[in-house]
Amino acid sequence: MDSPTLRLAKELIRRASITPIDAGCQDLIGERLQALGFRNEIMQFGDVTNLWTRRGEKAPLFVFAGHTDVVPTGPVSEWRFPPFEPTVHEGMLYGRGAADMKGSVAAFITACERFLAHCPEPNGSIALLITSDEEGPAVDGTVKVVEALSARGETIDLCVVGEPSSSTRVGDIVKVGRRGSLNGRLRVMGEQGHVAYPHLALNPLHAFAPALLELTQQQWDAGNDDFPPTTFQISNIKGGTGATNVIPGEIELLLNFRFSTEVTADELKAEVEALLQRHDLRFEIEWTLSAQPFLTGEGRLRNATAIAVEAVCGRAPEMTTTGGTSDGRFIAPTGAEVVELGPVNATIHKVNEHVAAEDLDMLSAMYEKLLEELLGKA
Amino acid sequence: MDSPTLRLAKELIRRASITPIDAGCQDLIGERLQALGFRNEIMQFGDVTNLWTRRGEKAPLFVFAGHTDVVPTGPVSEWRFPPFEPTVHEGMLYGRGAADMKGSVAAFITACERFLAHCPEPNGSIALLITSDEEGPAVDGTVKVVEALSARGETIDLCVVGEPSSSTRVGDIVKVGRRGSLNGRLRVMGEQGHVAYPHLALNPLHAFAPALLELTQQQWDAGNDDFPPTTFQISNIKGGTGATNVIPGEIELLLNFRFSTEVTADELKAEVEALLQRHDLRFEIEWTLSAQPFLTGEGRLRNATAIAVEAVCGRAPEMTTTGGTSDGRFIAPTGAEVVELGPVNATIHKVNEHVAAEDLDMLSAMYEKLLEELLGKA
Repeated sequence: MDSPTLRLAKELIRRASITPIDAGCQDLIGERLQALGFRNEIMQFGDVTNLWTRRGEKAPLFVFAGHTDVVPTGPVSEWRFPPFEPTVHEGMLYGRGAADMKGSVAAFITACERFLAHCPEPNGSIALLITSDEEGPAVDGTVKVVEALSARGETIDLCVVGEPSSSTRVGDIVKVGRRGSLNGRLRVMGEQGHVAYPHLALNPLHAFAPALLELTQQQWDAGNDDFPPTTFQISNIKGGTGATNVIPGEIELLLNFRFSTEVTADELKAEVEALLQRHDLRFEIEWTLSAQPFLTGEGRLRNATAIAVEAVCGRAPEMTTTGGTSDGRFIAPTGAEVVELGPVNATIHKVNEHVAAEDLDMLSAMYEKLLEELLGKA
Repeated sequence: MDSPTLRLAKELIRRASITPIDAGCQDLIGERLQALGFRNEIMQFGDVTNLWTRRGEKAPLFVFAGHTDVVPTGPVSEWRFPPFEPTVHEGMLYGRGAADMKGSVAAFITACERFLAHCPEPNGSIALLITSDEEGPAVDGTVKVVEALSARGETIDLCVVGEPSSSTRVGDIVKVGRRGSLNGRLRVMGEQGHVAYPHLALNPLHAFAPALLELTQQQWDAGNDDFPPTTFQISNIKGGTGATNVIPGEIELLLNFRFSTEVTADELKAEVEALLQRHDLRFEIEWTLSAQPFLTGEGRLRNATAIAVEAVCGRAPEMTTTGGTSDGRFIAPTGAEVVELGPVNATIHKVNEHVAAEDLDMLSAMYEKLLEELLGKA
């Protein structure tokens, strides 16, 4: 007999909601929450459907944040079970989105159901912020909802993002912040020419070589207690016409920084540009700040999360800021405390994505305990 | 009134012989030479038509080498005159192939005509080796003809290649050799991964950076009296999936050496591979030797060429080994003395390719004088 959380997770997985398609997930969520007294608000931006649903008017406002969209399945033939036909096998729930993050969304809802059943008048409000654009460009999703809330003076105080934060067992890791992410598109210009006449040309890759070495060997900062040192990676490089006898006129590179709170995006930009200038390079660089770093310091949310995880799992979680970016980056700058707590991320974005069915119940229990800690006491 | 050389050059240009198409050029050449007592032999290899035509059996065997194929026109709308409608304008002959190298081929033939008219029994044989695959892969052209001649014991003693060797005025430069050309396709392997987790990946471009710097700064040799120092260029580089958040699993580069006689291709290969190994790189490299270097030292061909150029132009030519490769690379290894003497190369492979009409007559006069110097004396 499936638990309520598992049942709901399966219903969500059955809806093939590849970004930015929602496929009726949010309607299902809205119905369940409306029955608990939530007021649903659909916030449509471009192709993206977002659900903002809130119960209560009092502060503090506690938010569960997540998404209903999933990444594409990859080759369906490589799946043990069809990706949109949720299947429990040897205790594991298989299906696209099982771990990232329809399981968490189901756990949000069942946690609210149980919590409100015995605490119908909590000391604060509860809301869910559900987008269908987390896995995509993330332009018309959470960031727009947060802007709309800010514009009308609605302030999130506490937020749990249900992203799969766990590493080997559910609750082992809680993310309490994320590094920033800064992208650069660099073009280094030379002079095209024939390889037989290099003195009449300027090979931009040769010219760039000393700067490349310096960029890859540079230490940008030493990190701090909450963040590892800033890292730099070149993800793409291209140059050349394809012909073996032509010196390319330019090369193009894509750069990425994952940066700590010890440095700012503007400092990194300035440092890279000064380095390139010091090497007398002719270049153009376009920067895109994909995420500011954020950190939720010690406080009521981190404390309550630690208590909730330990109550369910018997062990306190590790609190880290490692990993990629998440929609937490859009919520934290409003001043909210934000943590991320979700299932084990080992199979996300892969074929045969799965999660232990019992982990979803544990997650739901942790979320319920968190609500009790934060809103359930006098 | 057009000179015989200009008339013949125009007839050749009118035949749109883009590599490997011959478009009847070799038939026209064969007819003209047959009338002088040459015996024509068509050597077809794959798509490529080659003409070997010889007059006489005695040594030494003197050969004019050239090609009838031309490179594509590029945008026809940018030509002042249609590229296959030869047009003389302000003393310049315009048309694709005017300089590279239908003008030279016409000059070969008119030089033979005049020389044989007053010296019908020269002290040696004359042949023309004409391919239609010089501008293309150069696989089924001169190299195959030379192999066929070698196989039957037919030895070229002296050879003038009609490639556009001249720089600012016809006869200013004679090439007496060419550098070698060695290509390498290098793959440097790393470990693909997410840019947020660089410690779980190995960025092959970062790993390659110190080797790249060393490769671009290395001096391979100092050259010698006949050759400039060996040069190294990376013509192409690519790596990355296009995504901004993925560390590439490998990068691929195309390398080229233009090398002097101070070093061998095998030494260069060994040096590069040792350098890459010293940097602990995981790599694969495929080498293609595109041309061995060759040099025609002081001797009867260089002397006669200097005399012929000075007799016509009033100034001795400069003898160099600079520039790209030519079909001379296939002929020199048989033991032949080889020089290259042809028109000004300023407009070759460009739109509005042209050559001074009078340069073609001067070239024909130089070739005639060369025949006299080498085969006309008792």
